[in-house]
Amino acid sequence: MRIAQVAPLYERVPPALYGGTERVVSYLTEELVRTGHDVTLFASGDSITAARLWSPCVRALRLDSTCRDSLAPHMRMLGFVYHQASEFDIIHCHTDYLGLPLARFVRTPTLLTLHGRLDIPELAPLYAENREVPLVSISNAQRAPLPDAHWVATAYHGLPSDLYHYVPHSEDYLLFLGRISPEKRPDTAIRVARRAGVHLRIAAKVDPVDRDYFEREIRPLLDDPLIEFIGEVGDHAKHTLLGNARALLFPIDWPEPFGLVLIEALACGTPVIARSLGSVPEVVQQGETGWLCETEDEMVAAVHRLGELDRARCRAAFDTRFTAAIMTARYVRLYQRLLAGSAQESTSSQSDATLTAPCEP
Amino acid sequence: MRIAQVAPLYERVPPALYGGTERVVSYLTEELVRTGHDVTLFASGDSITAARLWSPCVRALRLDSTCRDSLAPHMRMLGFVYHQASEFDIIHCHTDYLGLPLARFVRTPTLLTLHGRLDIPELAPLYAENREVPLVSISNAQRAPLPDAHWVATAYHGLPSDLYHYVPHSEDYLLFLGRISPEKRPDTAIRVARRAGVHLRIAAKVDPVDRDYFEREIRPLLDDPLIEFIGEVGDHAKHTLLGNARALLFPIDWPEPFGLVLIEALACGTPVIARSLGSVPEVVQQGETGWLCETEDEMVAAVHRLGELDRARCRAAFDTRFTAAIMTARYVRLYQRLLAGSAQESTSSQSDATLTAPCEP
Repeated sequence: MRIAQVAPLYERVPPALYGGTERVVSYLTEELVRTGHDVTLFASGDSITAARLWSPCVRALRLDSTCRDSLAPHMRMLGFVYHQASEFDIIHCHTDYLGLPLARFVRTPTLLTLHGRLDIPELAPLYAENREVPLVSISNAQRAPLPDAHWVATAYHGLPSDLYHYVPHSEDYLLFLGRISPEKRPDTAIRVARRAGVHLRIAAKVDPVDRDYFEREIRPLLDDPLIEFIGEVGDHAKHTLLGNARALLFPIDWPEPFGLVLIEALACGTPVIARSLGSVPEVVQQGETGWLCETEDEMVAAVHRLGELDRARCRAAFDTRFTAAIMTARYVRLYQRLLAGSAQESTSSQSDATLTAPCEP
Repeated sequence: MRIAQVAPLYERVPPALYGGTERVVSYLTEELVRTGHDVTLFASGDSITAARLWSPCVRALRLDSTCRDSLAPHMRMLGFVYHQASEFDIIHCHTDYLGLPLARFVRTPTLLTLHGRLDIPELAPLYAENREVPLVSISNAQRAPLPDAHWVATAYHGLPSDLYHYVPHSEDYLLFLGRISPEKRPDTAIRVARRAGVHLRIAAKVDPVDRDYFEREIRPLLDDPLIEFIGEVGDHAKHTLLGNARALLFPIDWPEPFGLVLIEALACGTPVIARSLGSVPEVVQQGETGWLCETEDEMVAAVHRLGELDRARCRAAFDTRFTAAIMTARYVRLYQRLLAGSAQESTSSQSDATLTAPCEP
């Protein structure tokens, strides 16, 4: 199949540091190439891929201090994609709504995966009025703010199977991983660990925008022998920390659309203790791969019940639900449905089990 | 002619306060309606027009504190415009490059007027690659950073003839009008007035982003009997201040693409002392409607030569070059050329006198 993958330009594909969307586009693109598809990746010029690469910019925009208008390269890229649409059997966009008005003018079908949070009031009318483009959510929960959009499927993110190694025996610490910010609730993680009497490692970057929050709310909580603040870590340290943790603490306070770190933990065999918001109950299976909690008390109790969870089952859940191969196979089926015209018929019926209970074998 | 006018959504059309682009779109739209055209204005929902109004938002976005994504309504509007393109003979866009990739997919020709500064590195390749959309500059100088774009004409801004009244006799003060910011050089205006020994009135708003600059660089200069800082003024006070001034001081330090205040002054009969940057030498005629200066010394000398300028000639220059009727007639000719297909042939040749010496009788 001749496939255009259209990525945001903020981070390279895959990202040098953070960047969930570009990371997933990379996993999908490389797996598509590996399985024999003819893929053109539209992404920043420093992207690394086995696909054909076309880029409107030399470097990823977020790290390019010379960039003065990040929208213009995106519009240039989308113009280029759609003006040569006939070169592709399918155009798979990951650039939010930027290409939406263009899609109806070409014969090549577009599939649009929405990667971000959607509870922004300006989005609902935009997607309601552009229903000719089939949309993919990265969790069923993500769809909630846009019930009238043209959803055709949920496709969970997937990681290459060999990216994280299964670790059968953990050390005795909990892990908070990612970013220090109010909606990630590192303060909750710290209180849960202290109340449970378990060591907590915090491996998280502090963005400039969150520096005040960190100094005011979090630093005073770090003066405790149970709490170890490591700061931002590279990929290698991240793998080791994730693999050896007894559990990942994920006490979020916002409707996370997916939460890539959850499946990174599962790939290591590490279970998750999470607040049950957004995509979390779709990714974490209660009593199987983690504990879904509503309150801090429940999270403390969950720490004491970690022994009931089997690390091998966590990895098995990853292998059967969240690999890049599974994600890619799902997208290929969606491409095929679109090419056969069937996606146009199966609109956004959320009662269609094949659409809303995806990724299960 | 069935004409779509597509305005930015940041300010209403016309703006309640500042907003050059939306102001000009309003003048053009109302004059098109007055002269019998069938105009649909795409603009914020609080716009005031005799045309048919379609809007993706109830209020102008800059003043709407509930707006969380200002791009989405623009994309929604442009999708709507182009999906019903066949309803129009011409689509006249004022929304920078946002509609650029869409224009080639419809039969209805698009004319795109660029209102902003263009010396942003990401713009050149975008406009070079989308040459099927004819572009209008608001001054010839504005084109400099984009020599490879598909320029077909310059159309100077115009004001309704009766908006400003001719004032034959001035009072004895100079005026600095608009916004306090480093590139407007209010400090130069103050030094020029002090050195020339002439009273200066400063009627200018201070945006939050320029507050530090004002306090640090400008406020210390205000403690002088010749200098009077008035602050932001409404339309009525602005008209009075402009009409009674001996001259407008316009000592800018950036390539102003047009400078609406210049023709507002001329409409009152008030000449201009300006630094000769950007569009200024196209708008102000040396020794006729003002003095074009390179240095502060030249500006001081120019104050002493204001007596050589005739206020009636300033108003006459406005009447023959910068009315809304003239601007509108020019655009109508451009629409007609586009409809006849001729604009496609006359590409961006800057040596074509009919393109680069516009608005002259």
